[in-house]
Amino acid sequence: MHTSIATVSLSGTLTEKLAAAARAGFGGVEIFENDLLACPLAPEEIRARCADLGLSIDLYQPMRDVEGVPEEIFVRNLRRARHKFELMNRLGADTVLVCSSVSPDAVDDDARAAGQLARLAGLAEESGIRVAYEALAWGRHVNTYEHAWRIVEAADHPALGVCLDSFHILSRGSDPKGIEDIPGEKIFFLQLADAPLLAMDVLQWSRHYRCFPGQGGFDVAGLVRHVLAAGYRGPLSLEVFNDVFRQADAGPTAVDAHRSLLLLREAVGAAELPPPVVPTGVAFAELLTPDAEPVTALLTALGFTRAARHRGKPVDLWQHGEARVLVNTAATARRDGTRLAAIGLESPDPAAAARRAEALLAPVLPRHRAPGDAPLDAVAAPDGTELFLCATGDRELPDWRADFADLPDTPAPSTTRIDHLALTQPWHHFDEATLFHRSVLGLTAQESVDLADPYGLMRSRAVANADGSVRIALGVGAAPTDDTVHAAHIALATDDVVAAARAFRAAGGRLLPVPRNYHDDLAARYDLTDDELETYRDLGILYDRDAGGAFRHCYTETVGRVFFELVQRDPGYQGYGAANAPVRLAAQHAGRR
Amino acid sequence: MHTSIATVSLSGTLTEKLAAAARAGFGGVEIFENDLLACPLAPEEIRARCADLGLSIDLYQPMRDVEGVPEEIFVRNLRRARHKFELMNRLGADTVLVCSSVSPDAVDDDARAAGQLARLAGLAEESGIRVAYEALAWGRHVNTYEHAWRIVEAADHPALGVCLDSFHILSRGSDPKGIEDIPGEKIFFLQLADAPLLAMDVLQWSRHYRCFPGQGGFDVAGLVRHVLAAGYRGPLSLEVFNDVFRQADAGPTAVDAHRSLLLLREAVGAAELPPPVVPTGVAFAELLTPDAEPVTALLTALGFTRAARHRGKPVDLWQHGEARVLVNTAATARRDGTRLAAIGLESPDPAAAARRAEALLAPVLPRHRAPGDAPLDAVAAPDGTELFLCATGDRELPDWRADFADLPDTPAPSTTRIDHLALTQPWHHFDEATLFHRSVLGLTAQESVDLADPYGLMRSRAVANADGSVRIALGVGAAPTDDTVHAAHIALATDDVVAAARAFRAAGGRLLPVPRNYHDDLAARYDLTDDELETYRDLGILYDRDAGGAFRHCYTETVGRVFFELVQRDPGYQGYGAANAPVRLAAQHAGRR
Repeated sequence: MHTSIATVSLSGTLTEKLAAAARAGFGGVEIFENDLLACPLAPEEIRARCADLGLSIDLYQPMRDVEGVPEEIFVRNLRRARHKFELMNRLGADTVLVCSSVSPDAVDDDARAAGQLARLAGLAEESGIRVAYEALAWGRHVNTYEHAWRIVEAADHPALGVCLDSFHILSRGSDPKGIEDIPGEKIFFLQLADAPLLAMDVLQWSRHYRCFPGQGGFDVAGLVRHVLAAGYRGPLSLEVFNDVFRQADAGPTAVDAHRSLLLLREAVGAAELPPPVVPTGVAFAELLTPDAEPVTALLTALGFTRAARHRGKPVDLWQHGEARVLVNTAATARRDGTRLAAIGLESPDPAAAARRAEALLAPVLPRHRAPGDAPLDAVAAPDGTELFLCATGDRELPDWRADFADLPDTPAPSTTRIDHLALTQPWHHFDEATLFHRSVLGLTAQESVDLADPYGLMRSRAVANADGSVRIALGVGAAPTDDTVHAAHIALATDDVVAAARAFRAAGGRLLPVPRNYHDDLAARYDLTDDELETYRDLGILYDRDAGGAFRHCYTETVGRVFFELVQRDPGYQGYGAANAPVRLAAQHAGRR
Repeated sequence: MHTSIATVSLSGTLTEKLAAAARAGFGGVEIFENDLLACPLAPEEIRARCADLGLSIDLYQPMRDVEGVPEEIFVRNLRRARHKFELMNRLGADTVLVCSSVSPDAVDDDARAAGQLARLAGLAEESGIRVAYEALAWGRHVNTYEHAWRIVEAADHPALGVCLDSFHILSRGSDPKGIEDIPGEKIFFLQLADAPLLAMDVLQWSRHYRCFPGQGGFDVAGLVRHVLAAGYRGPLSLEVFNDVFRQADAGPTAVDAHRSLLLLREAVGAAELPPPVVPTGVAFAELLTPDAEPVTALLTALGFTRAARHRGKPVDLWQHGEARVLVNTAATARRDGTRLAAIGLESPDPAAAARRAEALLAPVLPRHRAPGDAPLDAVAAPDGTELFLCATGDRELPDWRADFADLPDTPAPSTTRIDHLALTQPWHHFDEATLFHRSVLGLTAQESVDLADPYGLMRSRAVANADGSVRIALGVGAAPTDDTVHAAHIALATDDVVAAARAFRAAGGRLLPVPRNYHDDLAARYDLTDDELETYRDLGILYDRDAGGAFRHCYTETVGRVFFELVQRDPGYQGYGAANAPVRLAAQHAGRR
């Protein structure tokens, strides 16, 4: 099925929007009238631009407040429509969206609305144009798709059909099953948007909080199945108004948007994609740094040993039990300081996992990073983090460790492993990051939580596989300027956080100090012994508990944009210590002064 | 009455919050528990810090999920409370806020809740502490102030009273009149917050969208009158959670917060302030520029004449009819480029106007800008714009023009005057700016409107006096980083915008070009003659209409961070051409490439 996007869903000028939509792989666009009005190109030039970009113009939108009005007003409306139809002919658009009226002039008279829409359709037909009538959720008299269809049916004009919009239908709680009663050829257009489930004024909800299918709480796929069952074969088109997308770069937004439509097509069985291959563990985390010294000092204090060295590049493999960290001092890193640049994920079928990622628009990275390297499937996540798909120790498949030469120091045995990785997302693409990790990697997302930083509210959402051997916490700051404020981190799982913290400190590591008031409050909340409390206080260990067990954790100092966490997780505990985040964030700010 | 603010209302560390509250003139604070937990100071040190700053600690908050639970849970809660009371004694706080339970453990049993609260109050009393019980709007069983009061009354303990919160009461639509039935001495605390009238989930509304009294849609003053009528004499305290304030600097937020409380005290008759003196006209606008040439070229093309020169400073007075623009090339300007730095407002009583501004925490500027200058009352608006209060031509009062020496060129007669001034506000302080202009200057605010910029949504809100001779449009960009993107502008009113635009262009001025598509659409929307349309198209004149008449306007190029608008306003037209803003903003972005 043809995919399309309304230009109002993307930021920038009309020509920027068209270029972004084409680059992301959309087949067509809906042209939003205000975008055209603000564009210096003539309609014919816009038509040619779209043709050059391989985009069809699937819809011109919207015409407002047309129908159900007194005759003298309708005559003016027809005059207005004639202008628009001329414009559409110049533009090469053959379908116009007419929204149900919100005008105080409109009267509650279906026969009048049907008669006027038939006359409008008659005028449109003369110009080779079809009219798609849509019920706005806040339409004055017509605000359900059933009502819009009754009027279209009564009007009985071949150039008049309905436009269905998932937001308008699902936000009102209408049952989409009735869509199957509409003949498919009378469904002229289908607009798709999701939204978080907010109990708020529907107009505000629609104008500011729509999101792409799969990011919100609506069953958009269920609705699309009904539309397909009705026989609709037109475009699947996105129309999403969202304050954040209005500010974000059109390019990445268009890619995220198209990915959501591809997933929707898969969900409704209208297209096949390579199936997800869920990762089964974390092979490594890779730090890029212009100066290895502070990083390796930190790793050493944490108990890591430098176990191997890359055969061709300035990359060292540090190991502590099952936790592996690559330290890469390649020149490309100098600009950005120390950062978490890549993650190795164990995959039962790396090539298949990469195929799905590629089909879902993730940039595929070169399989050979350097001559002689083991070929390794890798893709980039939306935030730029490189995801390497590994089959460590699998004899049938290339092993990333083959690129490394072992060093004489054998790492001491240890049960330490990577508990989770926390990545900081660009402000504008938090929901898209979650959708990527869920849909491309097949991970499961937990609820999003708000974390109170002293200087703004952060959001965090974790994705994980079923046994918790892959856990990634996606975080985003309070404002666009925060991208660089919050560091990424690597959490190391240990059987005994007290012993690990003590060993770290004994080796010269610096733990994040935690205010005494925090531990005094712990005493009020939990039955901890005085000894435990004193130990936690001394080491800056934080404590949380859920129905499944306890979580004890502490933090190292930050190097560049990375820090480490030591965690002791009871098997049943599902969280990440979010309740303690405000104290941790305040302490990190204090340390930065 | 004593004024207080909850530390959760301000951003930063606890010590930053305390300093900001004290500097803004608050008498006390509510200490939010999480702020204390994240603070490295011991409770005794926080107490001393508050004493040094002259702040009382009026409340410790919150204790959650205490009452109406099975006995074994309540015993644990009492143990938790004992810890808190010890802490409060160290802190020197004598009132604790207890929120009605949201716990799934709580049962719907008023007698049990009352009995347990009485036991809690008994324990508190031993430590000299009072318990203020508050109904959360989303409390599990207790969610109205009437219900909380019934339980407190039944508990009948001297150390137990209610805490009233305007948000929790007004967001549920409760009638605050019943507050008068509560004995004043049983109202232990009063928390105040306003909020925009949003139909949304009350918990989300409360956590993210509260604002200061006077900024939202609630009748907070009406509620306070009932509380005072009941006999309450405790603090007026602000508790405002808001995503924007969480990011903004605590200092200005605290000042804005305190101003809103001072206005509230005035509104309820609890304090007298100098009354507002509404300005009666715009005396001048002052541009600061490091390079006079581009500005004076623009002014000349607009028809301005250099009419006078300041006797002691590099400031020229340019005049065109009643429109006066000062061009200031003082060294202080070089850093910031050309900007609109000051406004002269005609005032019937400049000194009284300045007294009100000072009483409402506006920084008062020195009356003598330089030796020999006429003494002139001036204050700074929240965005830093200097507001000079002028009595131009009044023989009894100093005239700002006395500082200027007339130049030989006499301005040609003209009916041109300043129609409005558009100021760009810092992102975090838009609502506060409106409150300032309304309450300090006595101007009336119109509705806030959203303007779609190609790169994000802007908001704009106009304030004006009754006859429209003073109009100021306050605008704010879509994100914190936008502060510098959108320029301020000076709109000049003319009787004939076509003639004015032609004269400007003939004199070498550059008008903002408007896409042809815009004027094609005008033809569809309005009955304009082809001649009119061709003229508007040629000159880039935009057109709007409301019930009161038409508005024709066009724009000059931008110099630094300022541009001019030429407007022809029908007497009855009330707006500012907001419908055309997307086209204007897109054209300005295009011109910047």
